[in-house]
Amino acid sequence: MTFQVAVIPGDGIGPELYEGSKRVIAKLIEKYNLDINLIEVEAGDTALNKYGEALPKQTLSVIEKADIILKGPVGETAMDVVVKLRQMYDMYANIRPAKSLPNVQSKYSNVDLLIVRENTEDLYKGFEFVPSSGVAIAIKVTTEFASKRIVNVALNYALIRRHKVTCVHKANVMRITDGLFASVCREVLKGKVNFDEMYVDAAAANLVRDPTRFDVIVTSNVYGDILSDEASQIAGSLGLAPSANIGDRKSMFEPVHGAAFDIAGKGIANPTAFLLSVSMMLSRMYDVSKENKYILASKSLEGAIIETYKSGNKLTEDVGGNAKLKDMVDEIYKYI
Amino acid sequence: MTFQVAVIPGDGIGPELYEGSKRVIAKLIEKYNLDINLIEVEAGDTALNKYGEALPKQTLSVIEKADIILKGPVGETAMDVVVKLRQMYDMYANIRPAKSLPNVQSKYSNVDLLIVRENTEDLYKGFEFVPSSGVAIAIKVTTEFASKRIVNVALNYALIRRHKVTCVHKANVMRITDGLFASVCREVLKGKVNFDEMYVDAAAANLVRDPTRFDVIVTSNVYGDILSDEASQIAGSLGLAPSANIGDRKSMFEPVHGAAFDIAGKGIANPTAFLLSVSMMLSRMYDVSKENKYILASKSLEGAIIETYKSGNKLTEDVGGNAKLKDMVDEIYKYI
Ligand SMILES: CC(C)[C@H](C(=O)O)[C@@H](O)C(=O)O
Ligand SMILES: CC(C)[C@H](C(=O)O)[C@@H](O)C(=O)O
Repeated sequence: MTFQVAVIPGDGIGPELYEGSKRVIAKLIEKYNLDINLIEVEAGDTALNKYGEALPKQTLSVIEKADIILKGPVGETAMDVVVKLRQMYDMYANIRPAKSLPNVQSKYSNVDLLIVRENTEDLYKGFEFVPSSGVAIAIKVTTEFASKRIVNVALNYALIRRHKVTCVHKANVMRITDGLFASVCREVLKGKVNFDEMYVDAAAANLVRDPTRFDVIVTSNVYGDILSDEASQIAGSLGLAPSANIGDRKSMFEPVHGAAFDIAGKGIANPTAFLLSVSMMLSRMYDVSKENKYILASKSLEGAIIETYKSGNKLTEDVGGNAKLKDMVDEIYKYI
Repeated sequence: MTFQVAVIPGDGIGPELYEGSKRVIAKLIEKYNLDINLIEVEAGDTALNKYGEALPKQTLSVIEKADIILKGPVGETAMDVVVKLRQMYDMYANIRPAKSLPNVQSKYSNVDLLIVRENTEDLYKGFEFVPSSGVAIAIKVTTEFASKRIVNVALNYALIRRHKVTCVHKANVMRITDGLFASVCREVLKGKVNFDEMYVDAAAANLVRDPTRFDVIVTSNVYGDILSDEASQIAGSLGLAPSANIGDRKSMFEPVHGAAFDIAGKGIANPTAFLLSVSMMLSRMYDVSKENKYILASKSLEGAIIETYKSGNKLTEDVGGNAKLKDMVDEIYKYI
């Protein structure tokens, strides 16, 4: 099979990240003989201005036929692009690794945890209304089905990692909704891995106190949103964190960082999060195809990024270097 | 007037914290000639076991007549005691300072921020139900009234601090509920203080990146719960953080930490959070009475705690010392 990949370069630094990364992707495709067809589409603030829609019809029709979406950061319209696509294609598992990189100044070292965030329900359903003037209501939804599905994803990751899952919830307050999530965690995980539970407030503190105590964290959508930003900053920088949105039919890969309009067009953006997202995409292609070349390509790219950090002389400003985006990409290219 | 204070020693280390702190409170009352009448009542896990209710009727009848509640940590029944009292007496402002203490080993220094957490609504209303088997629903409530009220509290704190308020929400996703909160923030704060807005995920990351960029953070109940635990850990330790729950008629003061059953009865618990909560209580008594002696007593207690950390040789194990609870309290007593 050939993987059809719809690429959304996005807003702000998004287009230059994709432009800069093309050589790297092309080298991987050639070297590993990957069957990948990249199709660029528009979505985000720029698309909204041009077409009146953040997610234009022509974009959606490409995405509809694609297996995978590779997405750069999107500006103010993120919700209409990101959350919409996640729900539309039931990409239920948001996978967010937080891992220390060599030579990145950080108060923490050896961070290596994975947040598995439920990606389709909770307050993200978008059910909100105004029952009376000055009163706003939102509905938090937790289902047994979606909870089981995500906890199983966490279990599978734990089994290929350090066999530990921390289930994060607030079932002492949200007894019914978070209570359901917690009980599914116990049912699915107990006896299969080293399993513990933690209230979300305690988890936010424990990430600061000792991030190395965590392996896999599984949690619902809102808590996952908050804790994954916190964790990636603890691992070094929010600007370096990749993510995957996995569904049964389609998946989407995106850096966690935003469009960074303030540095857009200057060629100084850090390509790490975008390229690590490409590496996660290649790993997903392996999971789907079971063809070794994809996992080799994924590991090669991840390894090249780590080498670049280890050598440390072609890093962008945000991580203490003075290289440009292009120089850093060239260095990564070299190591592939 | 004489302040009637209902004291809930609570569970785990709670009773020894109160027992140990009594001398300090008595010295303050005597030295500053404070009009305070302390009445001990039972609530929490122990009360549940004894009376079948975490918040027994005889306790409630004392609390009903009291002006103030001073509360130690409570175990598994925290929700039924803490959240119930907050709502019952409309103690709408949860005030949570996160401040570095001298000689406390921490990756961060000079942290001095204040989280003002809305304390009565959001998902904490407790409206939850099961519309169909395997489906759980919770209702998040945001009102203009409660938002205005809490944002005004934040404004008043900012005006006696560094004149900066960060309003934390997620209005890009919860457009109606968090959108209402955000619009109230703009309405109340713009032009009056240095005001900015931050999405809750970004706030969780920014607390890690640079906690000193914050002065006052105002936010809704769930985000406040999470961010205040994170912030207090960043300031040094969750175990050192005090808090106030302020209402127009009644207020409650409590350490943020839990009952710590594992060290209960050993006399090694750290009294800082409990005594800093007492200091917040005295400061509230000044706000209510406008009698200077209360603020003097509040500052004297806070100063004595800081001196104890500065001298550093009577600290409990959790902060790197080898003193017992009693020794540390004696040292604080000395400095008053
Ligand atoms: C942009 C926003 C809607 C999104 C979210 O809240 O999920 C982002 O913060 C993320 O975590 O991917
Ligand atoms: C014990 C719990 C119900 C409480 C809360 O969530 O508010 C606690 O975490 C706190 O922050 O005071």
